[in-house]
Amino acid sequence: MQAMFKSDPQRFRRYSIQVNDIKLDYSKNIISDVTLKLLFDLARSLGLTQAIESMYAAERINFTEQRAALHIALRNMSGRDIVFDGNNIMPQVAIELKNMRGFVEAVRDGRWLGYTGDAITDVVNIGIGGSDLGPAMVTDALRPFAGKLHTHFVSNVDATHLRNTLQGLEPRTTLFVVVSKTFSTQETLINACSAKDWFLEQGATQAAIATHFVAVSTQTEAVAAFGINPVNMFRFWDWVGGRYSLWSTVGLSIALSIGMSRFEELLFGAHTMDEHFRTSPFEKNMPVILAMIGVWYNNFFGAESVAILPYDQNMHRFPAYLQQADMESNGKSIDRQGHTVDYATGPIIWGEPGTNGQHAFYQLLHQGTRMVPVDFLLPACSLNPLGSHHEILIANCLAQAEALMCGKTAAIVTQELSVSPLSPKRKKTLLPHKVFPGNRPSNTIVFKELNPATLGALIALYEHKIYVQSVIWNINAFDQWGVELGKQLAKPIAAQLFSQVKSQHHDASTEGLIDYCINLRRDSTTQ
Amino acid sequence: MQAMFKSDPQRFRRYSIQVNDIKLDYSKNIISDVTLKLLFDLARSLGLTQAIESMYAAERINFTEQRAALHIALRNMSGRDIVFDGNNIMPQVAIELKNMRGFVEAVRDGRWLGYTGDAITDVVNIGIGGSDLGPAMVTDALRPFAGKLHTHFVSNVDATHLRNTLQGLEPRTTLFVVVSKTFSTQETLINACSAKDWFLEQGATQAAIATHFVAVSTQTEAVAAFGINPVNMFRFWDWVGGRYSLWSTVGLSIALSIGMSRFEELLFGAHTMDEHFRTSPFEKNMPVILAMIGVWYNNFFGAESVAILPYDQNMHRFPAYLQQADMESNGKSIDRQGHTVDYATGPIIWGEPGTNGQHAFYQLLHQGTRMVPVDFLLPACSLNPLGSHHEILIANCLAQAEALMCGKTAAIVTQELSVSPLSPKRKKTLLPHKVFPGNRPSNTIVFKELNPATLGALIALYEHKIYVQSVIWNINAFDQWGVELGKQLAKPIAAQLFSQVKSQHHDASTEGLIDYCINLRRDSTTQ
Repeated sequence: MQAMFKSDPQRFRRYSIQVNDIKLDYSKNIISDVTLKLLFDLARSLGLTQAIESMYAAERINFTEQRAALHIALRNMSGRDIVFDGNNIMPQVAIELKNMRGFVEAVRDGRWLGYTGDAITDVVNIGIGGSDLGPAMVTDALRPFAGKLHTHFVSNVDATHLRNTLQGLEPRTTLFVVVSKTFSTQETLINACSAKDWFLEQGATQAAIATHFVAVSTQTEAVAAFGINPVNMFRFWDWVGGRYSLWSTVGLSIALSIGMSRFEELLFGAHTMDEHFRTSPFEKNMPVILAMIGVWYNNFFGAESVAILPYDQNMHRFPAYLQQADMESNGKSIDRQGHTVDYATGPIIWGEPGTNGQHAFYQLLHQGTRMVPVDFLLPACSLNPLGSHHEILIANCLAQAEALMCGKTAAIVTQELSVSPLSPKRKKTLLPHKVFPGNRPSNTIVFKELNPATLGALIALYEHKIYVQSVIWNINAFDQWGVELGKQLAKPIAAQLFSQVKSQHHDASTEGLIDYCINLRRDSTTQ
Repeated sequence: MQAMFKSDPQRFRRYSIQVNDIKLDYSKNIISDVTLKLLFDLARSLGLTQAIESMYAAERINFTEQRAALHIALRNMSGRDIVFDGNNIMPQVAIELKNMRGFVEAVRDGRWLGYTGDAITDVVNIGIGGSDLGPAMVTDALRPFAGKLHTHFVSNVDATHLRNTLQGLEPRTTLFVVVSKTFSTQETLINACSAKDWFLEQGATQAAIATHFVAVSTQTEAVAAFGINPVNMFRFWDWVGGRYSLWSTVGLSIALSIGMSRFEELLFGAHTMDEHFRTSPFEKNMPVILAMIGVWYNNFFGAESVAILPYDQNMHRFPAYLQQADMESNGKSIDRQGHTVDYATGPIIWGEPGTNGQHAFYQLLHQGTRMVPVDFLLPACSLNPLGSHHEILIANCLAQAEALMCGKTAAIVTQELSVSPLSPKRKKTLLPHKVFPGNRPSNTIVFKELNPATLGALIALYEHKIYVQSVIWNINAFDQWGVELGKQLAKPIAAQLFSQVKSQHHDASTEGLIDYCINLRRDSTTQ
């Protein structure tokens, strides 16, 4: 890479692209014009143009489930119709946004009163996966825009999660938002029932449930069966995938936190990225560029993972959010023709905020034996400006990208060691350990500040990147059959734990572990 | 694996091992007696026996820095001396524990008073890397054992982290614990200075710093220069590595949260694992078994990562903690002889708590194209028992391990689909997508409950696993030269951001990004 920078003073200008104030610098990659041309040719030959059109044309691109994938409709502010199954779906989207606005404003303005006549102070979102990670990530990320409501998220079926969250909350001022597309998600239903128990045990009446529990779902009957008034059910649709749903009423907790206008800014930001993705030639298309560079490392260098490193503390859950968005979408090995692929598909996504990661795992990024392509995400301005903190933060981020690329040669280390008081023998021992091989790739994504519109655009950028890669890998990004088997197998194991009866149904390991758990639980006062 | 279970009814019994109440089931791995014998032979031939002895004998096994690695001394409750450099270091360890106890009890009992005469209610730990991840992870994990003090952690130089934390705290009842081995860590010092500014701005006097700021460090002068009374400095030593330091006074925030006796239980738990590791033959040695199975996948199957999946919400930071412990230790490529290795070393560590992960990235574990060895961690009993939550949690964990191993064949899917109302054509399309290849490896670690002793033993288990692997890979687990270059390069970039002057020192990408940041910041009201 360093040689390429030396031979081409325009490399940064040529290999960076801007959408709104979001600049993607992809010049620190092991690519040339030839590489890029081949990658874009590959994308064309694999029908990417058609695939993008199919998504916007509301085709059933989720072919195993016979569904469309229309998250772009949820933020379609172009005024254009989106026709699915013969109907323009945009009016439905507008109606639900209006319903959301009415509710959100009532709660935020203190007009939505709890059963004692007090305004709501705390919102508890109960959901898991797409009904949790998106809303939780965005609410954290946009904390500087939050109003007075405190927003909490419970997802794990481990009762500790619910207990920790309810500690210090008062039923009379707490609103529960139960989010489940099917309203049958086990973890969510158990948590919602225990939350209801807590609510009633503290003295609230059954009738009070109507003002303290609302639902986001596609299933009216199940919602009513739980005890929630269907009037307080916010709808979304079969053509919204769980991990693409924060833009729908699933984002209710986001809107309660930052307000409906800010929520619409989030949608608008995503929409600008949608339009960029839909209309730009591949060579100038940010999601396509990001995707094809990912394919390059994934399939030609054997990279297994991508590190997502946001230099913003409020984005601390962004890597976990992308884990679902990416790994649940592209962690597949059956292609569109039903054959097992013989190439690598979706990578492992991981990461932590910088500068914390620098003091944890960057050692491996710089000197380990693996290639880990990196995405740095960096706001140029802080929403919490304080002294020189932000200059230091920016400097650290850019220095890490520089260090990964430039490395440090034995010659430079030798020179640095020459002024050290260490013995020649110690210097000789140390030398190789202080060398950095460099030539390690990274993208840097810089934007002005982490506001709703920018966050919306960033999320949409990754959503489209993921879709592009699924097209290249010839897989369905929108189903998730791989989550079914574990659910199925959990049922008989749970039954066995309740009955404490041995079975011979499982392998010896599963049987032995069930037995060990039962024994430990018998001995215990706690359970 | 399934065939091996069928041919050997004793496989679970033979391939599981227990230390205290911690059972490691390693039977769901692609291993046989032959594999294990070869792996243990490999360990012997590479001098593991000697390497373990060297650690306990206080040799300078961190040879690039000429230091010992004596975290085992910090929890040595055997009564045996540990002699380093001719001196028994155990009395020093005891003195610091005693100092800690005095301080911790004074604060917890409300005898340590703030400048207005009020007792301390909130503790803010300011540190990064090993001075943050260990204490933060343990404090979260042992939340059910916490007393009345609220403990907070600030690490990121992003001012958002400090601001978010200080929101709602009162200077008069807040104690800052500034943790830095060298007391020169940039992020920590900036955060500590800004915390001091906040403290003084709110009306506290300079003299009050003495009761509201304490330090954990090895550098008395730097601590005094900051304004902290050296009497309130807790010491540790050169022979404690940052990422192995939570057992020392670096654990002060842990002790303030759970009390000194519980902290000593944590140490004792680790000590039991230390003794097990030191004295057990490899074939019955839990850290050695875990390590060698990891080597098996890393070096013979090309696995690039290990997923750490705790089924306990309070362990949510355990994967992030292990990222540092493992990746900063073994993310190296220079061997003990100074040569570049031609084999893979430390893996990428990642993970999230189950059941959350199930609804996020497990899709890739089950049906993706990569082998990801998994460690499941599961408490048999909950410290927050509630309804059937915990049975469901256990069932989910065990079912995932079962599903990874057993998979689901096309024959079973065909049978299940036979009762479905779908058209034959749809069934044929669906079939391959619903098949799970299985034969995917996992370890399951089950323990009674997540108490201090068990957590101590679990952390020590991984510490020793990491050391064993470093011996096999012939690298130094205890240095971290890879973190230096980024720090070095950040300085001139920060200077450029302050001066806003262009330079020609960097590559065009770094230069261009600095410029872009400067321009965005000029346009902005915030910075």
